[in-house]
Amino acid sequence: MEKTLRFGPIAVPLSQAFFASKHAFGLVNLKPIRPGHVLVVSRRPARRFAELTPDEVADLFVQGQRVSRTIERLHRAEALTLCIQDGAAAGQTVPHVHLHVIPRRPGDFADNDDVYRELDATGRQPRVDNPECTPRTPADMAAEALVLRAELGGWDDSSVC
Amino acid sequence: MEKTLRFGPIAVPLSQAFFASKHAFGLVNLKPIRPGHVLVVSRRPARRFAELTPDEVADLFVQGQRVSRTIERLHRAEALTLCIQDGAAAGQTVPHVHLHVIPRRPGDFADNDDVYRELDATGRQPRVDNPECTPRTPADMAAEALVLRAELGGWDDSSVC
Repeated sequence: MEKTLRFGPIAVPLSQAFFASKHAFGLVNLKPIRPGHVLVVSRRPARRFAELTPDEVADLFVQGQRVSRTIERLHRAEALTLCIQDGAAAGQTVPHVHLHVIPRRPGDFADNDDVYRELDATGRQPRVDNPECTPRTPADMAAEALVLRAELGGWDDSSVC
Repeated sequence: MEKTLRFGPIAVPLSQAFFASKHAFGLVNLKPIRPGHVLVVSRRPARRFAELTPDEVADLFVQGQRVSRTIERLHRAEALTLCIQDGAAAGQTVPHVHLHVIPRRPGDFADNDDVYRELDATGRQPRVDNPECTPRTPADMAAEALVLRAELGGWDDSSVC
């Protein structure tokens, strides 16, 4: 049986994860709004940010910083959108604390803030200009995760089980 | 001479701050996009998130969590948008790392993601539905800071000088 990581109600195959620390793990995206858009997730499936302990908060963002440096470099970006949609009324769709890490370049969206419109499944605007926002194949996601695992200093399946 | 805190090129009067920890401080907003929209700022004036040390990252977000709990309660919100615009291409306008903390309620924006459109001064859309987004008076800001200081457990001017 394939090993999985819990992300809210979803059992994510380990092949889509690219790091795991004491309190956080990284996932590539089924529907990235830009190439390189990844998630840093709390290992404990807390719904809201306020539920995390100080150690969990610190690890989530120290790892988030490490991941974001790598994502910016790999995708030749020059900025990052770092965002937690904390609660349904803020656009959270998976009830499990996760940080979005999105590489940004000047002019990458017609309007700079369309990045957020794309991010949010509750938006009522049609997503007409987001060709990448289609579900990817498991093979595509696993390939991206392998690159990120190598960049971030290795991976050991046993560390998350 | 009035004491100030450095926020990028801006000297912010201490009266507009509401907490200071080892590595972070809180500021009320000149142009909040919603009542209760505040900033958590790194004490060291680093431009990009990647420049922060692990201790600075941890303190910024542990304090950010403390602030966000208080903001959500005071503003009777049920969610929060927590966001760093990390670099100009991500909409950062003040070149000094800061976390936006924005209380959210269902339907508070016509489109959920208009929160980000308002957040971002680089957006090219007119801000027609944002009556609060006008500069506030120093007295208004100081009054809000006093409430937050009390809620967050006191304040000592000497802690930031």
